[in-house]
Formats: sequence, C-alpha cells, structure tokens
Amino acid sequence: MKVQISFMERAIELAKKGMFTVTPNPMVGCVITQGKNILSEGYHVKAGSDHAEIVALKNLKKKINNNMVMYINLEPCCHQGKTGPCAKAIIDSGIKNVVVSILDPNPIVKGKGVKALRSNGVNVNVGLCKAEAKYINKGFISRVTKKIPNVLMKQAISIDYKITNPRKKWLSNKESRKDVQFIRAKSCAILVGSQTVIKDNPKLTVRLNKKELGIFGKKRNPIRVVLDSNLELDINKYDFFNGMEKKIVFNSISTNFETKKNIDFIKVKKNKTGLNLNFILNILAEKYEINNLMIEPGEKLSTALIANNLLDDLVLYLCPKIIGKYGLPASSAINNFYSDSIKVESIKKFSNDVRINYEFLRK
Amino acid sequence: MKVQISFMERAIELAKKGMFTVTPNPMVGCVITQGKNILSEGYHVKAGSDHAEIVALKNLKKKINNNMVMYINLEPCCHQGKTGPCAKAIIDSGIKNVVVSILDPNPIVKGKGVKALRSNGVNVNVGLCKAEAKYINKGFISRVTKKIPNVLMKQAISIDYKITNPRKKWLSNKESRKDVQFIRAKSCAILVGSQTVIKDNPKLTVRLNKKELGIFGKKRNPIRVVLDSNLELDINKYDFFNGMEKKIVFNSISTNFETKKNIDFIKVKKNKTGLNLNFILNILAEKYEINNLMIEPGEKLSTALIANNLLDDLVLYLCPKIIGKYGLPASSAINNFYSDSIKVESIKKFSNDVRINYEFLRK
Repeated sequence: MKVQISFMERAIELAKKGMFTVTPNPMVGCVITQGKNILSEGYHVKAGSDHAEIVALKNLKKKINNNMVMYINLEPCCHQGKTGPCAKAIIDSGIKNVVVSILDPNPIVKGKGVKALRSNGVNVNVGLCKAEAKYINKGFISRVTKKIPNVLMKQAISIDYKITNPRKKWLSNKESRKDVQFIRAKSCAILVGSQTVIKDNPKLTVRLNKKELGIFGKKRNPIRVVLDSNLELDINKYDFFNGMEKKIVFNSISTNFETKKNIDFIKVKKNKTGLNLNFILNILAEKYEINNLMIEPGEKLSTALIANNLLDDLVLYLCPKIIGKYGLPASSAINNFYSDSIKVESIKKFSNDVRINYEFLRK
Repeated sequence: MKVQISFMERAIELAKKGMFTVTPNPMVGCVITQGKNILSEGYHVKAGSDHAEIVALKNLKKKINNNMVMYINLEPCCHQGKTGPCAKAIIDSGIKNVVVSILDPNPIVKGKGVKALRSNGVNVNVGLCKAEAKYINKGFISRVTKKIPNVLMKQAISIDYKITNPRKKWLSNKESRKDVQFIRAKSCAILVGSQTVIKDNPKLTVRLNKKELGIFGKKRNPIRVVLDSNLELDINKYDFFNGMEKKIVFNSISTNFETKKNIDFIKVKKNKTGLNLNFILNILAEKYEINNLMIEPGEKLSTALIANNLLDDLVLYLCPKIIGKYGLPASSAINNFYSDSIKVESIKKFSNDVRINYEFLRK
C-alpha cells in the first residue's frame, strides 16, 4: 500500500507542475508503474495539449504488459474535448490496471470514464489519496459543482489591523510581495475594487519570470476583474486596462464589449453590500471558466466578502508595524456574521512578516 | 572557540532553569570545565539560595587546577547580598580562568566583580554569547538600568481583530491557553484593568503544576496588579483578591495597605490615557522589584500601552474566528503613533491558533 501511495503522490506532484498554465482545466498527473518502479510519467501542461495519461503513454519506452499499473489523480475523460478521450487511449494501449484518485467532479461525466475502462476489461481502483487530489483541484471542483470559483482573499495587515501605511507605499516586505506573485500566477483571475485601481493604479500582472515559475511555455497573466459599480474608471488612465489580456468590468449600468482593449463590461444587479457578488462569482465561473479567483480587496470589498460568507481561502501577511489611526482598516464591523469553521492550512515567516493561510470550511 | 561557545550556551541553558523561581534576581548558570569536558554545573534557583557559581563550586568533585575554566552568563557579584560575594568565593577556590558573558547591568556594581577577580590573579574574558545572555535577563536589565520592568502584552485576537467572543467564554483554544500559563509563570507580576476583573473575574494564578514547570521548590504565583482608578472593585467580591499573594491596586484616590489580604493600594496621578502608566511601571520596578511584567489588557489598556510606546514584547494568539460587530476590538485607533521597529521573535502553531511573539525595539 505504501508504494501505491507514493505512486499517487508522485502523480499529484506532477499534476502541480501545471499549476501556472493549466487553467481552465484541472491539474492532472500520471505515472505508469511496474512492481516498485515508475516506468513513465506525464502531466497536463495546458488546455489544448495532451492530457497527462497520453503524455505518460507516449513517454513509455517498454512494451505494455498486464503487470503495469497507471496512476492518475483524476478520472480519465471519456468525451471528445480539444483532445481525444483518454479512456479510449488507455483501453487501446493495453494497460490493464488503473488507479484513480477522484472521479471527475462534473456531474454529467462523473464515473463514465471509469465505467468505460471497466467495461473494456480494465481493473480500476478509485479513492487513493483523495483528500490531496481534491485539495489541489478545489478551484476546478468548485467551478463545475457549485458554479462559482474558489475564492482566495489576500491581505497584508499591520498589528493594529490596518491595510495601508500612509508613510510608505507598501505595508509588507519584499519577500512577502514576491510570495504574493506566486499566488497571482496560480490564479485564473484577480479581482479588485475600483478604489484600489484609483488609489494604487496596480498592474495586477505576474512579475515572476518563467524560470522562477518553473514553466517552459508562455507565461500567463490572470484575467483582471474590477468592480466599478458606476463606471467611474477611465480606461485610458489606469494600468489595469493596459495589455491585451482579458479585462472584465462589473458594473450596474451596462453590458458591452470593448474589443480593441479586450474589456468586457458586464452589468449586474446591486444589493445591500454593493454589486451582487454571488452573481459575479457565478458569471466568472460559467462564462469565463475561472477556477481560482484571487481577490486583493480594500476595506469595503473585504467586508462584503466576509459578510456574504464567500471566502474559501484567506491569506494574511501580518506585518510588524503599528500604523495608528491614519491607516485604513482591513475590514469594518460585520453585522450578524460569525464563523469558527476556519482552519489554519499553513504558516510561514518571510523575514519579519508572517503569512497565515486560512481555509474556510463553508457548509 | 566552538567548544567555548557551547560551554557558555550550557551555562545559559542552566540559567533558564531558574526562569519560574528566581525573581527578583537575574537568571544565572555556571559550568566549570577542563579541556573539552564539563566537570561541574550549577544555577541560581531563587533569591536567598546559593548563586550559580557557588553551586558549581560545591558540585565540583575534582581538585581545582590552573587549567580549569569557569563560564558564567553574568558577572559574579562582589558585594555582600543575601549570600556572600561570589567573586571572593571564586578567588578563594583557586579557579584561575573565568569567562563572563555580560557585566552586571547595575551601574553601581558593573565591572567591579571582574575587577576584583583580575586584581587577584584570575584571567577574565567578557562578552561570549552576550546577545543571548542579555536576552534571557532583559527584564532584570530593564529594571536596574531603566527603572521599569520589561513589559509583555498578551492578547488573543480573532481574524477580525476582536478580543472577545460573545458566544463563548474563550477566543483561544485549550492549547493556547495552556501556553499562556507558561508566560504567567515566567512573569513577576500580572497587570489587568478593572473592567477585566469585573467582566471575567480572573484568578490570574498559574494553573501548571511543578512537574509541568520542571521545578522542585515551591510554585510561585505572580504578584497581581490592577488599575482601578476610582476604586470601584469590591475586594470581597472578586477572585483577584483571594489568597495571600501580594495584590496591588493602582488608583487615583488614596494610598493605604490592607495587610489582612495583602493588598497595597497605591495612589498615582492621571494623564490623558488614564492612570499614568510610566509612574506605575517605575513603582513596580523600584518598590516591588518586578523584572517581567505581563499585561493581559482589554481595549482601553492595550490602546494606552501602544500609544505610550510602553511595550517590549507582544504575544498575539491569532484565533481562526470571525466574530463580527459584537466582539470588542483589541485596541482602538491610536492617534499619532507609528512604529515599524518591531521584529518577529518566533511563531508557533497551537492546533488552529497561531502564536506570534513580537519584540519592540524601543529607542
């Protein structure tokens, strides 16, 4: 059992190599083994390129025999997508044993890949390392099952719960800020409020190079999303609107598409806390296929996110400063909200900043 | 040099064994070595019992020779205190080599012990591991040099910066609360505001047993201190006033001594933020010989401590809860205060609570 776990863990490790490139697809890794040896490996790099199983089959140097076992962290597909169905490729290859960590979360296809394999004489085991397999693809799973992305909020806060430092541009240190770039790179989209665009004029691009990210193909910048209820932002003034990456402006006034700058203006209804965030998340999942949404909010937006119980992940950088009354608070008092279903996923020190990753266990 | 450092580190380790018992004295440890071997060890257990050097000399089984070296983390005393002067005992013993980490911080005696040794033919080196030696006795050093204790503030806070949970008695978990007991045990005194006494009726005693503290003699409870400006607290009503440990009630009305319950009422002047905290700290250092003061404040007191720049240490327990608007904040907006001279001393996870130890680098 131990060696089987280590094979699946290797498949998951391989899957994570697609972390920065694979969106909107899930991360998938695959190993083909015999006895105690890994004979071949593969992972899915990006939408349109070979799936992990196909890569592993192509990389296999030995003739396939009945003792070989294929480990995959996600059920093989059985439908014709941008690439051929993997279930068929596995059957055709002659592989007779497959271990799958989790089934495809998509309710329409869930279990069909395994069924196709089994009815063609392939032994399939499901469930090995399933917690970890779910965890790495929780954004994808959220999108296809709940029709909303996984929502990660990032804030850098002082000891006295402020998010701005009137004396300096940054609250957090250089190492923390570099770490944030990895979160950006992993995210399919980044969302901010219009006030952040006005005050900070952020680029919201990934500042790491391909070597730092450990990727070979093209570097991808996340889709940029802003909440601009009254369409106050001048698209010729702010860096947010630069470049040809997709930009989305959620607002309460009109829907239209500015193709020259690749900006989608999407009208949504308002509620008590501003633009309806549930609608926005749904649109981001269904129309834009966003698995992982990163939010870098100011006071108003963070308060709305908390009050509406929309967080899946909270990444706090605690900065060793006391700012006093001229800094803006991280959130304002939240009425009628209480949660203790929050767990600490990890803690890490970046010099004198401390990062805490919280996971919200939403019901 | 490496072996000499390890000898001094051992002396410092021994010194720390006095952590829970030694107040108001400094923690001192001593080893006597020859070549690469430690021949004898000792540490100071509590005021009135033998100093570390005397313990190590008494424990030494071999006849003293010129190759032996004594390592002590603090300069030996040269004055007659509750016990005889250690410098004289070292001279009389025949030890010819002494390594001292730091000089006695007390300006009146500083360097006199070393001078006495040297003028009696003992070789003395000063300065090995001095940063660590200063750190462990920073409370004692603060008291004798600045005439105020080292001030440690402890708070348990939620993600949204609240210190109370209207739904439960505690914000922090059991493991964090046990950890707090060790901070209490290390402190010479604990200070709270009168509102904390009224709302929580705390005992402020150490709940750990001798085995948990690793001590052999009597367990010591810290002196209990309350700020009760208008003398509102009924001394027959609250657990704070129970037991025969010293209790101090700082107030703005009168000074008197209630001997039956061992309560000292001390009158101090008020300033903008309430009772003058600088005066109070000075009295605690000079009259009560408090090296390490622990403060478990509510909103008002924590705000005053920060605003008056009185913190040396801040121990935050970050609890994974969002409390909302019915919890009290950890501090209120602080006017005209700003600090970024704060460093993270350590971080530790207690299940889902995270403890961060901050050190304030006051000028």
